[in-house]
Amino acid sequence: MIEKQKLKAFAERELDSFSDYLRIPSISAQNSGINETVAWLQETFSALGAAVEVWHDQGGNPVVFAELKGNSSKTVLFYNHYDVQPPEPLDEWKTPPFEPTLVAGKLVARGVCDDKGELMSRLTLIKYFKENGGLPVNLKFIIEGEEELGSPHVDAYVHAHASQLAADVCIWEGGGRNESEQFQITCGLKGIASFDLEVVTAASDLHSSLASYADNAAWRLVQALSSLKDQQGRIKVAGFYDDVMPLTEDTKKAIKDIKFDAKRVTQEFGLLRPFVTDDPAKALVNSATLTINGLSSGYEGDGTKTVVPRRAVAKLDCRLVPNQEPAKIAELIQQQLIKNGFADVKLHYNTGESAFRTDLNDPFVKLNVAVAKEVYGASNYVVVPNMPGGGPAKQFVDELAVPIVMIGIHYAGSGPHAPNENIRLSDYQDATVYLGRLLEAYQAE
Amino acid sequence: MIEKQKLKAFAERELDSFSDYLRIPSISAQNSGINETVAWLQETFSALGAAVEVWHDQGGNPVVFAELKGNSSKTVLFYNHYDVQPPEPLDEWKTPPFEPTLVAGKLVARGVCDDKGELMSRLTLIKYFKENGGLPVNLKFIIEGEEELGSPHVDAYVHAHASQLAADVCIWEGGGRNESEQFQITCGLKGIASFDLEVVTAASDLHSSLASYADNAAWRLVQALSSLKDQQGRIKVAGFYDDVMPLTEDTKKAIKDIKFDAKRVTQEFGLLRPFVTDDPAKALVNSATLTINGLSSGYEGDGTKTVVPRRAVAKLDCRLVPNQEPAKIAELIQQQLIKNGFADVKLHYNTGESAFRTDLNDPFVKLNVAVAKEVYGASNYVVVPNMPGGGPAKQFVDELAVPIVMIGIHYAGSGPHAPNENIRLSDYQDATVYLGRLLEAYQAE
Repeated sequence: MIEKQKLKAFAERELDSFSDYLRIPSISAQNSGINETVAWLQETFSALGAAVEVWHDQGGNPVVFAELKGNSSKTVLFYNHYDVQPPEPLDEWKTPPFEPTLVAGKLVARGVCDDKGELMSRLTLIKYFKENGGLPVNLKFIIEGEEELGSPHVDAYVHAHASQLAADVCIWEGGGRNESEQFQITCGLKGIASFDLEVVTAASDLHSSLASYADNAAWRLVQALSSLKDQQGRIKVAGFYDDVMPLTEDTKKAIKDIKFDAKRVTQEFGLLRPFVTDDPAKALVNSATLTINGLSSGYEGDGTKTVVPRRAVAKLDCRLVPNQEPAKIAELIQQQLIKNGFADVKLHYNTGESAFRTDLNDPFVKLNVAVAKEVYGASNYVVVPNMPGGGPAKQFVDELAVPIVMIGIHYAGSGPHAPNENIRLSDYQDATVYLGRLLEAYQAE
Repeated sequence: MIEKQKLKAFAERELDSFSDYLRIPSISAQNSGINETVAWLQETFSALGAAVEVWHDQGGNPVVFAELKGNSSKTVLFYNHYDVQPPEPLDEWKTPPFEPTLVAGKLVARGVCDDKGELMSRLTLIKYFKENGGLPVNLKFIIEGEEELGSPHVDAYVHAHASQLAADVCIWEGGGRNESEQFQITCGLKGIASFDLEVVTAASDLHSSLASYADNAAWRLVQALSSLKDQQGRIKVAGFYDDVMPLTEDTKKAIKDIKFDAKRVTQEFGLLRPFVTDDPAKALVNSATLTINGLSSGYEGDGTKTVVPRRAVAKLDCRLVPNQEPAKIAELIQQQLIKNGFADVKLHYNTGESAFRTDLNDPFVKLNVAVAKEVYGASNYVVVPNMPGGGPAKQFVDELAVPIVMIGIHYAGSGPHAPNENIRLSDYQDATVYLGRLLEAYQAE
């Protein structure tokens, strides 16, 4: 059985040896650093004794598959991704995004929480087990490079390589502590539909003196967008909520157990506005959202330029709950725009992923609860029906028939996708111990 | 008396010698090329025998003042500006913006219609008169370098130098033909209020999975903006229209005489949307507008980045009619935002200018009508109570007590502020002849 203090010291000591992973700017949205990162993964897994394959057969960025034998017949599959979000806005980073820096017990780097740090913790644990009696169970890793693009190819890879990926249970990307410092055992994901709205009103920008008769792309976009939400933030798209299923009693109970520290969240993110919901814990699990990710139109430089913009674009995403289909949701939005008089506002669909939830009574969920009680303490964990973020998990469930849980190294201030993304070293150590104990308990079960 | 064909040929021949003015990127919004342009003006006016002064005493970009003696005691004052709009978006220019290019009878360059080409026509005429018996009347020029910034200093210069600027009549910046090819004698300007709206909701951009509880700066801005206009485009700001005065009978009649060729305008600008008014001619003269010039928020790059933006900015202007005060209008908008529940959306006031109209019965207006009949033909001109654009003319009226008319070289497809800004060579020639005949007729009157 793991010696906890020894593993924590080992994780801290080995941190630097895995940090090169954070130094490679593997930004899928900018097609940067992909091959370099794949090579690093191949080399690192091989050095730990894994059989490694790099898959290209379904297109897109290469997928790394690694397999390690353990001391039992049980197999755990891990899903991770090696791509990260673009680091912009660069001027808001206090340290360089691709130069991991330890600041007051926190490791700061783009991707450190989403999710390179998670894989580093898993690699550390493999190394530890190898040096201390071997792996308790067989491990498989599938590591893709397009998660931040909405994983457009991973479904095809899972389908094509289903027999290689076969496993008993699956541990997803990552996870961690919530705003109340509870360790989360997360059993599902929200879905996502990502799309742009574009409107063009003229062949070129016009002098703004012509605004007395010429229509304006920016105004069209603003009015079209505002027609999709009411003042209370409810989405006014016919059929948008139709496929949302009633919560099960188990899920309702799990939501009640989630402690949500509103004051702390507000401080952590420097929020200047009231919440858009009365029940944030429930909303994180079961609210479908319609979010503007970006707006762009006309003159955006310094000073003034008095034009009527010819074109305006909004980038948006919807976070979805189980049973809502991403492509259908996008189509409903386009139809609603047409109904609202905005047929000229065109929806360009980017990517979609479906939501899912693992049964909260699954034995692997219950095993996680037992280990969480041991490692974090009886009142310091929570079972979360699904996290508010997304990922391509639905295909894994459908093809491999595995229960999926999400556990990891984050805390509420990790800031995935934001400048100064970071993890706390203590969480990294604790989560490595947790995973080690989970694998041992799973072997023993 | 001018020989029309000779002057037209002269204007074409001399075009190149004045085109260096178009080659200097004198972009006030980017503080570029200012001193170089001032030096060019000094040298060019001096070479034509003018007494030239460069004024710095009221701050801002230098103001060029030039004075030439003519063969009568009457004095005509010209107002022009040497600064131009930024050329962006650069990829929409078919020829380089600061390399004037003659394409199928059209001269293309940033500033060629607004308003460097206008001054080039005036310089050409001076040279012609100098070589052909002298100037019929005294000429004064005031040429500022901050018009595209809203002329923040010109009022102070006009006040400080009122005695030097004293004149009998004033010819403004420029003018030209409307969409129906009528030559316009324009007798006023709209006012303008230019401002930004900014909203900040958090200390950093957030992962969009947090949209289920965290508010979104882009949504705040969209909802705030949409609360300022109804679906018909009417501005929903309490008091916005209160100071608009009823039109005089003269003005109503003048509006009726304006031919507005809707089909041609639609083609010229590639407009894809219906007009926002039933009566464009009247709207151009007397509609107050609220225009989004630009929108900016969150991720605007390629691909997707699923964030909740922390900050959103809109740039706007209002085109105003006589008696509407720009600063008051901006304050009404901020107050309306507060009333609508958007106290967090902050208005940053940039610049303002007041509207004005010269009396349509003024003798100098009537003299223009007579010369227009001679040069363009009895049915090919129109008296326009005011143009839809702005300028710092109100201070000239107040300090110098001059009637102001706007005449020049444009046509409806000139595209001021837009990519591929251009003039037709034939208009340039005609307008130079018109101005020559006007000065002669003014001497003779």
